[in-house]
Amino acid sequence: MVNTKTVPQSVQWNETSIKLLDQTKLPLETVFIDLFTIEDVWKSIVSLKVRGAPAIGITAAFGLALSAKSYEETNLEEFKEKLRKDKEHLASSRPTAVNLIWALNRLVTSIQDSTSVNEAKTTLTHEAIRIQAEDEAVCRQIGEHALELFKDGFKVLTICNAGSIATARYGTALAPFHLAAQQGKNLKVYASETRPVLQGARLTTWELLQSGVDVTLITDNMAAHTIIEKGIDAIIVGADRITANGDTANKIGTFNLAILAKTLGIPFYVAAPLSTFDMSLESGEEIPIEERNPEEITHLHGVRIAPEGVQVYNPAFDVTPNDLITAIITEKGILQGDLEVEIKNLFE
Amino acid sequence: MVNTKTVPQSVQWNETSIKLLDQTKLPLETVFIDLFTIEDVWKSIVSLKVRGAPAIGITAAFGLALSAKSYEETNLEEFKEKLRKDKEHLASSRPTAVNLIWALNRLVTSIQDSTSVNEAKTTLTHEAIRIQAEDEAVCRQIGEHALELFKDGFKVLTICNAGSIATARYGTALAPFHLAAQQGKNLKVYASETRPVLQGARLTTWELLQSGVDVTLITDNMAAHTIIEKGIDAIIVGADRITANGDTANKIGTFNLAILAKTLGIPFYVAAPLSTFDMSLESGEEIPIEERNPEEITHLHGVRIAPEGVQVYNPAFDVTPNDLITAIITEKGILQGDLEVEIKNLFE
Repeated sequence: MVNTKTVPQSVQWNETSIKLLDQTKLPLETVFIDLFTIEDVWKSIVSLKVRGAPAIGITAAFGLALSAKSYEETNLEEFKEKLRKDKEHLASSRPTAVNLIWALNRLVTSIQDSTSVNEAKTTLTHEAIRIQAEDEAVCRQIGEHALELFKDGFKVLTICNAGSIATARYGTALAPFHLAAQQGKNLKVYASETRPVLQGARLTTWELLQSGVDVTLITDNMAAHTIIEKGIDAIIVGADRITANGDTANKIGTFNLAILAKTLGIPFYVAAPLSTFDMSLESGEEIPIEERNPEEITHLHGVRIAPEGVQVYNPAFDVTPNDLITAIITEKGILQGDLEVEIKNLFE
Repeated sequence: MVNTKTVPQSVQWNETSIKLLDQTKLPLETVFIDLFTIEDVWKSIVSLKVRGAPAIGITAAFGLALSAKSYEETNLEEFKEKLRKDKEHLASSRPTAVNLIWALNRLVTSIQDSTSVNEAKTTLTHEAIRIQAEDEAVCRQIGEHALELFKDGFKVLTICNAGSIATARYGTALAPFHLAAQQGKNLKVYASETRPVLQGARLTTWELLQSGVDVTLITDNMAAHTIIEKGIDAIIVGADRITANGDTANKIGTFNLAILAKTLGIPFYVAAPLSTFDMSLESGEEIPIEERNPEEITHLHGVRIAPEGVQVYNPAFDVTPNDLITAIITEKGILQGDLEVEIKNLFE
């Protein structure tokens, strides 16, 4: 039997266009759209068709390279000036996305030594491809390290979508599951639906089904009961930011799971690339927690589910203290024990 | 200023009809419907317009008394035979509801010594009123005991709707908040939305707003972060069944909260009447956990949110072990310390 399962990729470079998975249509429809202009790219980012910090950065990088290919300028300085304007425009599509700015700056820097417009155009394309390839390699390495921790037959719980479609490929927390499926190793994943935006229900289940991973959906409040009843062996999550001592900011609900793991005696793993570490912050207390729109909680599909006038608290993230984290899995290996020391050693 | 806030009551006896709060319309509309016949009552129970074990029992009792009032039989045995048939019919409206059968049996038993049809009709009505009055008294006592544990200004987290509208009045876990509002004592409630059926978002917030309680809605996975960030002082929940050793079955998510409370150093209270204790079961391991329809998780308002083909685990309840419970609050007082011994003493 032919294995038709593949690890989904949300951004693909097609030389004259970018093929993008429209994540707003998931999980009901799997729709890829073709982006031909910088405006197509800008709108895709603004309208959340692409999500996940690495995937946004990659899309923007390809968008800038694509736009530059069409410039008719022959003077290199004029070319660079036009590129700078397009970069600013793309950067405005999601001003708070650090990866977006980082990727765009990397493209602009890459042509510093270019001696012709044609050379610059080629360099920009190559640099964008390199950003994607590097991210895929990092995710794959994280997955391989994580897989060392999971025995065949393990049942593993995850939250949100630290997944393939949020990165170049494979994802972070979901990378070991995709690799296991490729290698014929059996892991059973429990996906926590992740209220309020339901990334677990909508995206993680879809993504894992694409690559043939055995996945079961639960609501967030079923975690403790499921750990006991189903014999969950480990929890693995992604990270939005990790401070110098190992404290980890991630999607709201992560801290809950870390406490359950500790109390119920199973390991709690964080999977994240080195780029997620913010060594300028000593501990999680310094991480500001964004509060999001109350309507994410009071409405579902535009229909009100809570009474008018009710107060709402809607923090987007929480911070898991380092003493609840069994190990942090990076592309450079597994950090465990005294996380603060391990992280310091890694960055020295 | 006139206080227009009142503790909502979901079932009211109006001599020739029953006034029932249509809970399926909450929280968008506050609709009371008038039930005139046994068929009205039967349909209201079947269609979930009334929910909560005590409220269902009260509605059914009033329904049977109301129906009996219209019987034209003058022979007492014929009257009793007709009553028995109506009782069976009402019992079929929700066959698994223990309170429903209990209340109906109590009505039938109440007329054992009646000497005339007219006397029997009056007795049935009085017995139904008594069932409601007793439940209200029990809830009020639970609320008063619970209130001893909450200082003015306390912030308390709850899950599901162990509320006034699920009982005769006041509820169990929500009773202290209604009483506090009546007494001008300030408690701040955080309501966990309670996926998948959202009783917290739809019902608890609505009910507490009716009596003027300060209530804030969160999603279930925000509990740990909220306990830390907002300084939650205690958690209080209801119970579906409590075994002889104090293990407590309650809405899914309760066990999660109990673990968070223990780890984060705040008390975890269970509020329940003596009728909730099942002394035939030694421990929670003997409690069967019902699994509900997967569509409760995969669909919202009939719209699919998870991909076709995903597996779902949807347990309705979980079991919180006695060592995570700080105290059980009953109408007879507060049980704490060795719960198994306390419960044994109470039932001896």
